[in-house]
Amino acid sequence: MEKAIEEKEIGILIDQWSATLRTCDVTQIMAFYADPLTAFDAIGVLRFASIDAYRQHWEYCMQYCVPPMTFELSELAITAEREIGFAHFLIHSGAQDKEGNMHTMWMRGTGCYRKINGMWKIVHEHFSTPFNPETGNAIFDAKP
Amino acid sequence: MEKAIEEKEIGILIDQWSATLRTCDVTQIMAFYADPLTAFDAIGVLRFASIDAYRQHWEYCMQYCVPPMTFELSELAITAEREIGFAHFLIHSGAQDKEGNMHTMWMRGTGCYRKINGMWKIVHEHFSTPFNPETGNAIFDAKP
Repeated sequence: MEKAIEEKEIGILIDQWSATLRTCDVTQIMAFYADPLTAFDAIGVLRFASIDAYRQHWEYCMQYCVPPMTFELSELAITAEREIGFAHFLIHSGAQDKEGNMHTMWMRGTGCYRKINGMWKIVHEHFSTPFNPETGNAIFDAKP
Repeated sequence: MEKAIEEKEIGILIDQWSATLRTCDVTQIMAFYADPLTAFDAIGVLRFASIDAYRQHWEYCMQYCVPPMTFELSELAITAEREIGFAHFLIHSGAQDKEGNMHTMWMRGTGCYRKINGMWKIVHEHFSTPFNPETGNAIFDAKP
């Protein structure tokens, strides 16, 4: 089946968003999000219910980030109609420590998108890593 | 703004799905999912890439479940067009232990839906709890 033009557009958005994440530049990263937005991140609190709260969280996350960060998607699947769409993917993510050693892990991501004034924006996203129910620890060594 | 008829339909689906989850009946729960589907659960592995793998996971999760399970949604937001939609919500979830004591926690959920042969089905879902980056532990006492 021919991929819908909207799915191609969201694929381009996701490519640009991923490339921007790798720069660790919070101002440029935030340009991909709609306002209002609700975001569920892998760390910290249950949810970020405003764009300002999410920006502060990105600033916290990126404060020690030395670009380029590792942020590579795999198993990306995109579904879209005229003005909304969603996608899910695995993420190989990580950053260098102060000694320059790269630490990476695999996570999961779901993105929800809406075309607003002709531009696709992220209206919701959900990042996470599963936990081990026997230990209560997040699973950092999961691999696809 | 008038809520789209599709958003009302997905709201009904989510109500029925939640009520069915509380019964712990895996066969009835699985009727809400499309095949193929990709699911990210809060525990276990990175992703379930088939309906069969996800059914086995539900059977594992429900093996000690004494109905009614606690599974209550809040902050539900639904977006839909003609044949696709998505939703995000917080979940107050839990179950009784063997002594009949209820243990609950808050999690996050994202659902993605598609109308297939006139019926809304879940084509993707993502459940998680955030973790504390300092300890690596999943956060079980988060509250909205």
